[in-house]
Amino acid sequence: MTYCLALTVDAGLVFASDSRTNAGADQVSTYGKMHTFERPGERVFVLLTAGNLATTQAVLGRLRRDIEDGAAHSLYTVRDMAGAAEYLGRINREEQEKHGEALTRAGFTAEATFILGGQLRQQAPELFLIYPQGNFITTSAQTRYLQIGESKYGKPILDRIITRDTPLGDAARCALVSIDSTMRSNVTVGPPLEVIVYERDRLHFEHYLCLEADDPYLADLKAAWDDNIRRAFRDLPRFDWESAGAPVPVRHDPSR
Amino acid sequence: MTYCLALTVDAGLVFASDSRTNAGADQVSTYGKMHTFERPGERVFVLLTAGNLATTQAVLGRLRRDIEDGAAHSLYTVRDMAGAAEYLGRINREEQEKHGEALTRAGFTAEATFILGGQLRQQAPELFLIYPQGNFITTSAQTRYLQIGESKYGKPILDRIITRDTPLGDAARCALVSIDSTMRSNVTVGPPLEVIVYERDRLHFEHYLCLEADDPYLADLKAAWDDNIRRAFRDLPRFDWESAGAPVPVRHDPSR
Repeated sequence: MTYCLALTVDAGLVFASDSRTNAGADQVSTYGKMHTFERPGERVFVLLTAGNLATTQAVLGRLRRDIEDGAAHSLYTVRDMAGAAEYLGRINREEQEKHGEALTRAGFTAEATFILGGQLRQQAPELFLIYPQGNFITTSAQTRYLQIGESKYGKPILDRIITRDTPLGDAARCALVSIDSTMRSNVTVGPPLEVIVYERDRLHFEHYLCLEADDPYLADLKAAWDDNIRRAFRDLPRFDWESAGAPVPVRHDPSR
Repeated sequence: MTYCLALTVDAGLVFASDSRTNAGADQVSTYGKMHTFERPGERVFVLLTAGNLATTQAVLGRLRRDIEDGAAHSLYTVRDMAGAAEYLGRINREEQEKHGEALTRAGFTAEATFILGGQLRQQAPELFLIYPQGNFITTSAQTRYLQIGESKYGKPILDRIITRDTPLGDAARCALVSIDSTMRSNVTVGPPLEVIVYERDRLHFEHYLCLEADDPYLADLKAAWDDNIRRAFRDLPRFDWESAGAPVPVRHDPSR
């Protein structure tokens, strides 16, 4: 499994990903799912990957070859982020088609899903989620994040914390908390965790973290979050019957 | 969709459920998913339902008829909770088979899933999750809860809080927080929320709550949880680069 997410706030973009892949519970490996493409001062892209590993590797290979070959269509020639998403969607579909039938016959799927984010000079930073079918969506004023893979466990904290004016540090920390909640509940999501913090208009990647399982900051963060959540829970209002020490009142009859 | 859960702690059992059902996004209704069977002083059962509404209603009808008819096998004749789970599994499979083929042809499923919990006199309280195929599982010393329906959003808080010595009030509150997180993320899970708090060895249901969306306690709980989570997040350790106001250090090179 996989869990990757990307956040867009006024101050920039945050990308985060786990590094565990599995084909069945007995075939677990570590692969980075975060990849960067950069023309400093001109355009930067971060790609997060989920799904069939052969497909995501083939797609990455195509993206790099198209750049190296100076192809008419590549991440270095697209006019804007939406153009990059469209190009990636096409490559994704083409690579899936190569082996899709054979995989389907064998009971597997070639499907892959991507998050592509970045910025082109004199344009706004943007995020896109590219589906296996090649279509794609972006964020909105209300929905400031995109997720791929095992997205549900880590979603509630994003919904509570992330707004457009969340500082980049908070956004990166919230992404780590979101992945931590996911790792606790799904063993096929695991470290190292990769994080890129991109400051708007830098057009250059400066801020990359790769946090191993024993990383001191990650350990501190997990321990503090666990403590703080317990305190948050402990400080919730009590039911009437708890403080009174009285039996719980029946508000309605449960028999129907 | 649906979200129901049940917790087992040393002090007793807690059951909680939402009340929203939907057949497509434009056909949303309110149905209680919590049902009780009670012979005070002798045996008590709580049934939580998820899945095809026709199947769950048919199963409930069968359970009630078998009791009324004094059938050889009913919730009032089973010898223990495992026997009750086995009986329910069989009824569930039989009711699904009646319409399963026609539903499959139409692109639907007759499947239903249940949580059955309760206690028989001079036995321990127990919880079972009954699958559509009729098989079932119970809890363990490490896993003190069972969930059906939309279970992922609300799981992390259960993993952090619930242990065997959690008091019943905390367990009931944690169940409500778990449902609240789910309601925020999935609009097809919704109020009223029903909660039963069963004190071990009472063999009688005293503690039932039905919380409408505007219930004052539920509103207080949601507001407090939201505040407390924000504070828990605000109190997390900062990245080095945040406190220093310095640029984020690159710990590793992201290009691969």
